[in-house]
Amino acid sequence: MTRKLYALCGTDKSRPFSPHVWKAKLSLAHKGLTFDVAPVGFTAIPSLEEGATKIVPLLRDGEKLVNDSFDIALYLEETYPDRPSLFAGEGGKAMARFVESWSQTALHTAIGRIAIMDIHDSLDPVDQAYFRASREQRFGKSLETVAGAGREDLEIFSAKLEPLRHMLKSQPFLGGNSPLFADYIVFGALQWARIVSPQRLLSEGDVVTDWFERCLELHGGLGRSVTAA
Amino acid sequence: MTRKLYALCGTDKSRPFSPHVWKAKLSLAHKGLTFDVAPVGFTAIPSLEEGATKIVPLLRDGEKLVNDSFDIALYLEETYPDRPSLFAGEGGKAMARFVESWSQTALHTAIGRIAIMDIHDSLDPVDQAYFRASREQRFGKSLETVAGAGREDLEIFSAKLEPLRHMLKSQPFLGGNSPLFADYIVFGALQWARIVSPQRLLSEGDVVTDWFERCLELHGGLGRSVTAA
Repeated sequence: MTRKLYALCGTDKSRPFSPHVWKAKLSLAHKGLTFDVAPVGFTAIPSLEEGATKIVPLLRDGEKLVNDSFDIALYLEETYPDRPSLFAGEGGKAMARFVESWSQTALHTAIGRIAIMDIHDSLDPVDQAYFRASREQRFGKSLETVAGAGREDLEIFSAKLEPLRHMLKSQPFLGGNSPLFADYIVFGALQWARIVSPQRLLSEGDVVTDWFERCLELHGGLGRSVTAA
Repeated sequence: MTRKLYALCGTDKSRPFSPHVWKAKLSLAHKGLTFDVAPVGFTAIPSLEEGATKIVPLLRDGEKLVNDSFDIALYLEETYPDRPSLFAGEGGKAMARFVESWSQTALHTAIGRIAIMDIHDSLDPVDQAYFRASREQRFGKSLETVAGAGREDLEIFSAKLEPLRHMLKSQPFLGGNSPLFADYIVFGALQWARIVSPQRLLSEGDVVTDWFERCLELHGGLGRSVTAA
């Protein structure tokens, strides 16, 4: 059985950057499962697997197709219960939803603005056209105007990490003494920025940076296997 | 055996307002444990139980004394494992630390400024003097100046709740389908504001308000048993 993970890429097929795909990659590695990464551009997603999805990650696991990073983690937890847990119980599953909501509202919105031109510039021409049209419709502004707001986001980005910084005083991972899916959720956001943008969101000497570095090392250095932009 | 929870109060001993004490009250009720509330002013805390603590809540459970709301929840979970769980597993325990860190950094700092004069005004004279001196030292500003910053916090308070608002699209409680200690953590912050301040931090029609109302009803309406300021 071949496991295949469809992963969003720009022109360079060796640099998958989607935060949600990174959550899924680390989840598969956490479970000790092997998989092939199938790179795909934005505009090719709707034709994957006979139109199975509008978003990546999309995981093919034998006969099964699952999309959405949280649903993939739930699927892996249910399907491979004897492998290391991604949630460590029902409470962990429920609260990972809160971590996801925090990451989406506090981090993704900011990174999406900060890195918007970097993302655009990394894409193939056909995907650049799609990205510009869809994002300009979403924001109601030109990419360049959004990037201007992103410069302000970058200045205050460190403050957004304050809840994580505070928590790291009591434990080394969101999962406690070792990482769980909740760590991969937040890691995914920062890994997205690391791979796609030369702008630096994390500072040396910050406990959040130390945590991120620990995450880069996990599962044989999977996160570090793609270099920083 | 009598269980006793020391709870911070102002002049009105029937209106305990400490957010951390509310976390402990709901945790005890969640476990189905009865307890007496012993009201105490700020300056009386150090002489409780032969100097056992500098902070409330302080729980006496038979021979055992425990302070700090998180430690109380952990103690109850360990001591009464056959009662309903406060964490639903190790993952829930770890991630409740993140919820606490978010609540402390995003909500408590703002509420502490918004309600600072309301808290002061609710206290006995001896506690007012202590509160003013300790807070003015902590902030390096007069209470009145901090309250001025609090007016700005109030205007943007709703945006701070965005992670919770986003999460409530997928589930009714931080604990999932039913509440866990993580809910009591966030509830405690908003209940503190509700009891001590006539300023309204929540708006009608907000899913966060609906969640807060659900929490007020829990365990026989324990939260609602103290009226709003």
